[in-house]
Amino acid sequence: MVSEFDIIHRFFQREQAAPGVLLGIGDDAALLAPEAGSSLVVAVDTLVAGRHFSEQTDAFSIGHKALAVNLSDLAAMGAQPRWATLALTLPAVDEVWLSGFAEGFFALADRFNVALVGGDTTRGPLTVTVQVQGQVDVAHALRRDAAQPGQHLFVTGTPGDAAYALQQLQAGKTVEAELLARLNRPEPRVELGMALAGVANAAIDISDGLLADLQHVLDASGCGAQLNVDAIPRSPALQSLDAQAALACQLNGGDDYELCFTVDADRVEQVYRSAEDCAVQIAEIGIIEPQPGIRGVYEDGSPCALKSEGFDHFRNDSG
Amino acid sequence: MVSEFDIIHRFFQREQAAPGVLLGIGDDAALLAPEAGSSLVVAVDTLVAGRHFSEQTDAFSIGHKALAVNLSDLAAMGAQPRWATLALTLPAVDEVWLSGFAEGFFALADRFNVALVGGDTTRGPLTVTVQVQGQVDVAHALRRDAAQPGQHLFVTGTPGDAAYALQQLQAGKTVEAELLARLNRPEPRVELGMALAGVANAAIDISDGLLADLQHVLDASGCGAQLNVDAIPRSPALQSLDAQAALACQLNGGDDYELCFTVDADRVEQVYRSAEDCAVQIAEIGIIEPQPGIRGVYEDGSPCALKSEGFDHFRNDSG
Repeated sequence: MVSEFDIIHRFFQREQAAPGVLLGIGDDAALLAPEAGSSLVVAVDTLVAGRHFSEQTDAFSIGHKALAVNLSDLAAMGAQPRWATLALTLPAVDEVWLSGFAEGFFALADRFNVALVGGDTTRGPLTVTVQVQGQVDVAHALRRDAAQPGQHLFVTGTPGDAAYALQQLQAGKTVEAELLARLNRPEPRVELGMALAGVANAAIDISDGLLADLQHVLDASGCGAQLNVDAIPRSPALQSLDAQAALACQLNGGDDYELCFTVDADRVEQVYRSAEDCAVQIAEIGIIEPQPGIRGVYEDGSPCALKSEGFDHFRNDSG
Repeated sequence: MVSEFDIIHRFFQREQAAPGVLLGIGDDAALLAPEAGSSLVVAVDTLVAGRHFSEQTDAFSIGHKALAVNLSDLAAMGAQPRWATLALTLPAVDEVWLSGFAEGFFALADRFNVALVGGDTTRGPLTVTVQVQGQVDVAHALRRDAAQPGQHLFVTGTPGDAAYALQQLQAGKTVEAELLARLNRPEPRVELGMALAGVANAAIDISDGLLADLQHVLDASGCGAQLNVDAIPRSPALQSLDAQAALACQLNGGDDYELCFTVDADRVEQVYRSAEDCAVQIAEIGIIEPQPGIRGVYEDGSPCALKSEGFDHFRNDSG
């Protein structure tokens, strides 16, 4: 017989002190000490079984991803992660699954010194909600509304891999480990996000697809962009596809958790150095322009028609 | 066609500025300004359809309760509520339901100046996770481990009503509105919790049942208590039951979200005045003692056998 209290204690409560945690798991609420002068940065994201991951996904990956998608939101603000809470709804108590989940969660949390400070375990269909708290100097935060004409447009990594991995899985194909990890264990660009704070301008993480998320930035900033589709880095896996299929993944594939951001011309060199320091691949893929909309071009300057198909959980709903 | 973005925008995004909110809903994360000198207090709680509320529960009540149970956690720390995030998993987009939910949520949020600063809407079985952030002077926080022998034991309100309402519902009986509200629209004791900060010692909110939650305090504090069962206030609804049935509700009924707290003898008068100022009924129901365990007594001093049946979401699980 495993009780709710046992679950928290056995799988999620850790004894060591964590920075800024005055009182962690075990009371009605956690007591935390935010750093003076920083603003608090808060994000929340839910993963639902059968929707954000399949029944086949291993528990370690689910634990990793539930935290990773939230850390990615902090990265897109330029924030340093500090604390997390976990709301875990489980159909039953499966100790092997819980161990794997906790292992994946903490492996990532430990890399970024994130302390789990609170949780709630309930019984029901498998759903994982993580909320993270971070900190950033408010003047340096990377906001969606900070893009301006003339800024250079960048993206990290090789967008589209997660979507391609999902396509392959759904087609019943075997997906090689490296590509599958891009879907199941996305790497939040935390260090780079922090390095970009106060250096880059607007930023967003790619959860809905590059076009859709870039459009969120442009909408918030009241401008548009020219996008050089040939400049978007393509992973070896995507290079094996025909050009149109690969481009569709790159432009519309969600779940990559790469960063898309804008940089003033005189900061571009600094940004390249930061990316090198963080060992994160970045590529310049366009320029912000005054007129609304995203205008696709190929390397040779000829136009490329763009079709946004960003992922939206309720898009196909009839309600 | 209602998209995820429309849901947030239409039902949960509000235009007015809120205290301490530098950037609210609409970016990757919220930017908040904690008050210097206060510690941050963070709690999270999930409500699952069919488990924490029935399919018959109205949307307004679900919106109210999802926030109320979290505010209750802050109250039990003596904290002032500041901000909330909402993770809402919905089987489909039902605009009438969403309007009602938002109305219930905001009606309570507005009473305590809580700003909704972030959210995630996903599709899946109905699950609501709310996280709240509040603030308290860390030296004044009401912790579970602060009970000491000799302190007087108090409870707010009339515990057991929510459990009785649930029993009646499950028996197919009609439940009068006032009693039903005790189950569906619990009143978090926010003002009293804040008034008790730095005055009372240990505190907890009653979500699992008076005995079970008191035991959490005693476990954390390493002591025990004598509990005068006749002193626990009994609502008119419970007075209609036979004494044993009423006592079972009072001792083991969860979902009341009343506060149970301990007070040094020389602060008792001050606590009564605070309760009067907050218009919250409080009752002295026992005393903290050195020896572990809870010893029930009747008013005349004769022993009363206590049987803890605190609610635990996983208690009956075979895993």
